[in-house]
Amino acid sequence: MIDLRSDTITKPTKAMREAMYNAEVGDDVYGEDPSINKLEKLAAQMLGKEAALFVTSGTQGNQIAVLTHCRPGDEIILDEDAHIFFYEGGAISAFAGVQPRTIKSENGLLCPDKLKEAIRSDDIHFPDTSLICLENTHNRGGGAAIPPSHMEKLFTVANEHNIPVHLDGARLFNAAVALNEPLTEFTKYTTTVQICLSKGLGAPVGSILAGPKDFIQKARKWRKRLGGGLRQVGILGAAGLIALNDMVDRLAEDHESAKALAKGLDKHPQLSIANNVDTNIVLIDISKTGKHSTEFIDMLKKAEILAVPFGPSTVRFTTHYDLNKQQIEDAVQKILSFEF
Amino acid sequence: MIDLRSDTITKPTKAMREAMYNAEVGDDVYGEDPSINKLEKLAAQMLGKEAALFVTSGTQGNQIAVLTHCRPGDEIILDEDAHIFFYEGGAISAFAGVQPRTIKSENGLLCPDKLKEAIRSDDIHFPDTSLICLENTHNRGGGAAIPPSHMEKLFTVANEHNIPVHLDGARLFNAAVALNEPLTEFTKYTTTVQICLSKGLGAPVGSILAGPKDFIQKARKWRKRLGGGLRQVGILGAAGLIALNDMVDRLAEDHESAKALAKGLDKHPQLSIANNVDTNIVLIDISKTGKHSTEFIDMLKKAEILAVPFGPSTVRFTTHYDLNKQQIEDAVQKILSFEF
Amino acid sequence: MIDLRSDTITKPTKAMREAMYNAEVGDDVYGEDPSINKLEKLAAQMLGKEAALFVTSGTQGNQIAVLTHCRPGDEIILDEDAHIFFYEGGAISAFAGVQPRTIKSENGLLCPDKLKEAIRSDDIHFPDTSLICLENTHNRGGGAAIPPSHMEKLFTVANEHNIPVHLDGARLFNAAVALNEPLTEFTKYTTTVQICLSKGLGAPVGSILAGPKDFIQKARKWRKRLGGGLRQVGILGAAGLIALNDMVDRLAEDHESAKALAKGLDKHPQLSIANNVDTNIVLIDISKTGKHSTEFIDMLKKAEILAVPFGPSTVRFTTHYDLNKQQIEDAVQKILSFEF
Amino acid sequence: MIDLRSDTITKPTKAMREAMYNAEVGDDVYGEDPSINKLEKLAAQMLGKEAALFVTSGTQGNQIAVLTHCRPGDEIILDEDAHIFFYEGGAISAFAGVQPRTIKSENGLLCPDKLKEAIRSDDIHFPDTSLICLENTHNRGGGAAIPPSHMEKLFTVANEHNIPVHLDGARLFNAAVALNEPLTEFTKYTTTVQICLSKGLGAPVGSILAGPKDFIQKARKWRKRLGGGLRQVGILGAAGLIALNDMVDRLAEDHESAKALAKGLDKHPQLSIANNVDTNIVLIDISKTGKHSTEFIDMLKKAEILAVPFGPSTVRFTTHYDLNKQQIEDAVQKILSFEF
Repeated sequence: MIDLRSDTITKPTKAMREAMYNAEVGDDVYGEDPSINKLEKLAAQMLGKEAALFVTSGTQGNQIAVLTHCRPGDEIILDEDAHIFFYEGGAISAFAGVQPRTIKSENGLLCPDKLKEAIRSDDIHFPDTSLICLENTHNRGGGAAIPPSHMEKLFTVANEHNIPVHLDGARLFNAAVALNEPLTEFTKYTTTVQICLSKGLGAPVGSILAGPKDFIQKARKWRKRLGGGLRQVGILGAAGLIALNDMVDRLAEDHESAKALAKGLDKHPQLSIANNVDTNIVLIDISKTGKHSTEFIDMLKKAEILAVPFGPSTVRFTTHYDLNKQQIEDAVQKILSFEF
Repeated sequence: MIDLRSDTITKPTKAMREAMYNAEVGDDVYGEDPSINKLEKLAAQMLGKEAALFVTSGTQGNQIAVLTHCRPGDEIILDEDAHIFFYEGGAISAFAGVQPRTIKSENGLLCPDKLKEAIRSDDIHFPDTSLICLENTHNRGGGAAIPPSHMEKLFTVANEHNIPVHLDGARLFNAAVALNEPLTEFTKYTTTVQICLSKGLGAPVGSILAGPKDFIQKARKWRKRLGGGLRQVGILGAAGLIALNDMVDRLAEDHESAKALAKGLDKHPQLSIANNVDTNIVLIDISKTGKHSTEFIDMLKKAEILAVPFGPSTVRFTTHYDLNKQQIEDAVQKILSFEF
Repeated sequence: MIDLRSDTITKPTKAMREAMYNAEVGDDVYGEDPSINKLEKLAAQMLGKEAALFVTSGTQGNQIAVLTHCRPGDEIILDEDAHIFFYEGGAISAFAGVQPRTIKSENGLLCPDKLKEAIRSDDIHFPDTSLICLENTHNRGGGAAIPPSHMEKLFTVANEHNIPVHLDGARLFNAAVALNEPLTEFTKYTTTVQICLSKGLGAPVGSILAGPKDFIQKARKWRKRLGGGLRQVGILGAAGLIALNDMVDRLAEDHESAKALAKGLDKHPQLSIANNVDTNIVLIDISKTGKHSTEFIDMLKKAEILAVPFGPSTVRFTTHYDLNKQQIEDAVQKILSFEF
Repeated sequence: MIDLRSDTITKPTKAMREAMYNAEVGDDVYGEDPSINKLEKLAAQMLGKEAALFVTSGTQGNQIAVLTHCRPGDEIILDEDAHIFFYEGGAISAFAGVQPRTIKSENGLLCPDKLKEAIRSDDIHFPDTSLICLENTHNRGGGAAIPPSHMEKLFTVANEHNIPVHLDGARLFNAAVALNEPLTEFTKYTTTVQICLSKGLGAPVGSILAGPKDFIQKARKWRKRLGGGLRQVGILGAAGLIALNDMVDRLAEDHESAKALAKGLDKHPQLSIANNVDTNIVLIDISKTGKHSTEFIDMLKKAEILAVPFGPSTVRFTTHYDLNKQQIEDAVQKILSFEF
C-alpha cells in the first residue's frame, strides 16, 4: 500500500524508538518528568513564547487554547474551513460554550477587512468577540502556507480590538520550511500557538501549546480537566525532542514529493490540481471523471493507494517521510492509467 | 418622535389593558393559570401543533427549542443572518453547547442544495447535525416572507436525514398575511415553531413555542431552568389572547405603510431600497450618502425620526400599529429633504 | 379550598391590577420602560446596592448571578438544601458549568468553620471556589430567618478568601420583618442579592437581582441570553412597585398566621412541628401517623386543604395574604379531627 | 528519597521499555494500531464488557463516561469524597453540564438507603438523575476495597430506577487482589468501568474505559473531542499489555508493604492509623502531634520521605512496586524517631 492519507500515519523512527527506550521519566502531574520539561522548554524557545505545554493532540491543544482564552457567551472568529471548526466535533461549543463565527477564506487566507467586519460591536444582543483563530499551513486550504506578512495584517486588526490570536500551527513547520522563514516570524503575530509533533515531524503522539506564562499555567489546569495530565509521559516527550531537533529540515523532501505527485497527476486529462501545492498536500479535482470522491478512493484502494475524500469531487493526497520517491512515482503511474 | 426602530416598541392597546385588568389568573408553575392555559391551547390550534408553551420572549422560545432538540457536541444549521445566530448573544453555544454551522442565504432564502451539503456525514471528526433552524419572515433578510413551497423543499431535505426543523417565526404572522396563506401552510413544514406576541401583534410581553406534546413537556423543564416558569402570568396571557384573536389581520396595514415609506424614500437620489419590502421592514442603502449608518441615525434623530443601523451602510425602518399614515408621510418628507 | 401550598399562589391585589392598568410602559430592551426603571431604582436603594435588574423569577435571578460571578470549572459552595441546588433543575451546572459543593446545614444555618473547610486550596486537581451562596429566609430550613450577625461571620470567611457572596433572598423581606432588622443589615453582608416580588409581597410575576453597577451591566446581557430581556414589562413592574411600597409590613400577619397554625396542629397527638416557625412556613413531622407525606397530602385535599410534601414524612404549610384568620382556624380544626 | 506519595510515580519496568521499543503501531484514529486493538480486546475480556477504549488517564475515562451517559440538566449521584467530584477540577459540570449530588459515605461505602433517597422524583423543579458513580478501591476512603456484595446492593437500587452505574476503578485491581475475587465479580455490578494502567500496574500512561459496544462507540467520539484520539499510541499500549498480563498479582506485595508500614507507624505514640489498610494506602492521623499536615510533610521531606497531605491532620502514604521492604522499614524507623 502506498499510504497518502495523512502525515499522521508515519511510524516513529529508529532514533525515536531508542530515545523512548532510554527516556528519563518522572511523574509529569507533579512536574517531575525531565524529558517533558526539556521538551516544553525547547518548544517555548523555538516558538518564541514564554512557556509551553505538552498535550496529546492538536485538537487537545486547540481546545485548551479556546477554554483558556474564552468563556461561555463569547464568539470566536475563524475561517469556515478551519480545523477547529470543521474537524473537532463541535468541541469548542460543547466544552468552552463559545459560538464560532466563520468567514469564507481564499485557501485559508482570511481577508483582514472581513475579519474586521466580523468583530462584534458592543450591543446587548451580541456575544463578545474574544478570540481569533488562524491556521497555518491550512489543511482544507490545500496545505497553503500563509506568509508572515499576511498574519501581521490580521494580528494588527486583532490588536486594534484587544482580541488575542490563537494559531492552529499543526503544520506550522511546513509553512516555515516552504516559505524559508524562521518559526518566530510567524508566531510573533499570535498570542498562543499549537504545533503538532506527530504529523510531518513523525513523533508517535503529541502536540505543544505555547504562549504567555500565566496563560500556560491556566492551560495546565484545563489540560487536567480534559484528562491530559499524564504520568511518565516523557516516553512520548523523548520522541518529541527528536521531532523538534532532527525532523524539521527534511520536510522540504515531503514538499518536493508533493510537487512531483501534483505534476504527475496533472497529466491525466480528467484530473486537475485544485491547490497551489505549497507544502505536502495535493488536492485533486476529479469532477471531470464523473465519479464521486468515495468511488475514486475505492479505485485507488484497488490500485493499492490510499487517500482521503475532501468533498464530493476532491481528493486529498498527503506526503510524508514514510514514503520514498519510487512510491510517489509508482502512485503517479498507476493513477495515470485510470480510465473513467 | 416617529419611532420606526422596531415593531417591538408598540404599547398595549386599550383592549389589552382591559383584558389584563380583568384577567383570571393562577399559579402557572402548578399549571393553574386559566388565561395561560387558554392561550397555549389557542396557539397550538392556530399553529397546527399538539401543544404550546408561553415563553417570555422569542429568544427564550428559540433557546428552549435548541436545548430540547439538541445536546452538546451537536451542530445546528442556520443561515448566517439568522436571529438565533446573530442576535442571541451566542446563547445556543453557551447554554446548549451546540455549534452553529451557518450558510449564506439570499434574503433569508436558504438554498436546499447548500443545506444538504452542510449536513455532516458520519465521521469521528464531525459533530452530529441535529437541528435545522429557519426564520420567517426573515429579519436581516429585510422582513422577507419565505413561501411555504420553499419551506417544503428544506423540510424534505431535513426529513431525508431525520433532522428536525425549528422555525423562528417571531414574525410568521407577517409572512402569512403578506403571502395570504394560512399559518398552518408554513408550520406543517416544521417540527417546532416559535412565534412572538409582542412584535406586530402588540402584546406587551410574550412568545409561544409549539410542537409535539412530549417535546413541549421537556421544553417546560428547560423553561423552568431558564427562569421562565412564572406565577400569575395570565396577566400577560390575557394580552396575548387579544393579540392572537384581534391583531393579526391588521398587519396588512403595516405592510402598506412600509411600501409607502419605501416608495417615498426611493425618490431621494442618494437613497435606495435594499430589500423587497414584503412585509413591515424597509432597508435603505445609504452608501451613496457617504455617511456611516450611525451618522445617518443621528441625522434622523435630529429630525425626530428613530431607526436602527443594519451594518455600516444600511438602515432599517420598521412599521407597526403605533404609527399612522400621516407619520409615515411626515417621515418621508423629512428624509427627502436631507442633504448629504 | 384553603391553599397553603405556597406564598407564590397569591393573586394580584386590586391596587396592583389598577397600577398595571395604568402603567406607563416602554421597550425595556432599549431601557425605556419608566415603570421598570423606577422599580429598579427603588429596589437598588432598598437593598443598599448600586444597581438592580428586574428578572422574571427567583430562579432567573439566581442563575444570572451564578453566570455573572463564575465560569466553567469553578466550584460554588452552598448548603445541601439551598433552592439553587435543590430546586433549579441542575441549571447552575447546565448553564454556568459550575460544580456545587454542598454542606449540610442546621435549618439553613451554614457553619462558618465548615464553610472555611469547603473552600478549595490552590491545586491542579481542584476547581476554583468562586462563589458562596446563602439563602434567607431558608425555605427547606422551614422558613428560618438567619440573623445578620450570622451572615456577617460567613461574609468574613468569604472576604478572607476574596470570594463573592450571593444571597438568594426570595423571602428576605420575611426575615427582615421577623427579626425586625432593616433590609440593608442583611444585604451589607452579600455581594449580590436576589429578592422575589411574587412570593409574600404578592406581585404576579417578578424578582430583582441587585449588586455592583458593573455586575448588573454584565447581568443584563446574561438576562438577554436567557430570554429575560422583555418589552413593555412595566406592566409587571407597576405591580412590583406596589409590592415593594405597600406589601412588606403586612408580612407580620403571615408570620402570626403561621404561628397560630403551628400552635393548633401541635395539639394533634400524631403531628409535631418540625421547624422554629420564624416566618410564614410550618413544617409538620407526620412520622407518627404511619402515612407517607403524599398520602397525608391526599387526606388534606379531601378536607379541602392544600399543602406540599417535603420529604417522605414531612409536610409544608405556607401562609400568605390570600388567607384570612378564619381559614387558618378552619384548617387547624379539620386537621385536628384527622384519625390515622 | 523514599517516595510514598502515590503509586502513580512508578517508572516503567524493563519489560515495558522493551515492549514499547518493539511495539507494532499504526494510526489509532483510523483504528489501525495493532497494540491498542490487542489491549482494548484484552481489557474488555478481563472486565467482562463488550468493548473497551484506551484513554490517556483515569480522569479522561471518567469524564468520557459522564459525557456519554448524561446530558446537561442531569444530576449524578456519588459520594462526597469520590475522585470524580473531589479531584477532577469540576470537569463533570464544566464539560458535561451535570450537577453532582454528593452523599457522605463511610470510607467510600455508600449506603443503599441514602442512595435511594438521593434519586430525584419526577418534578419540574428537579434535575433528572441519570448516573450513579462508585469508586473501588476508594482513594479518600483510604484505599478501601468495596466487596462485590455491597456493590450488588447499590446496583439493585440503580436498576430499580433504570439508572446506569459507572465505576471509577482506577485501583480496582487492588480491590480484586485484596478481596481475592475475580475482576468480573465487581464489574458485573456496573454498566461501565474505568481502570488505570498507570497506578499499581506501573504502565507509564493510560487507562481503560469499558462498557456496552454502542456506549464505547459514542465514547470514542467524546474522546476525540477531548483531544484523546491519538496516532501511534500503541507505544503506550504495549506497556499497558504488560501491565494487564504481568503486573496484577504482585499488587499483593504492595498491600503487605502498606500493612507493614501501618503496623510500624502505629507504634509512635502521637500517630494513629486512620484507615483499615485494605490495600496499598495508609492514612495517618497526626492530630496528636499538634502539627498541620503540611508541616508534617516538610518534616518527612527532611528525613527524605515523601507523602501527601490528606486534610489538615491526615497524611497519606501509598506503596507501589518501586519500593522495596528495606525502604518501608527505613521509613518506619525514621518516622518513629520524630519528636513533636
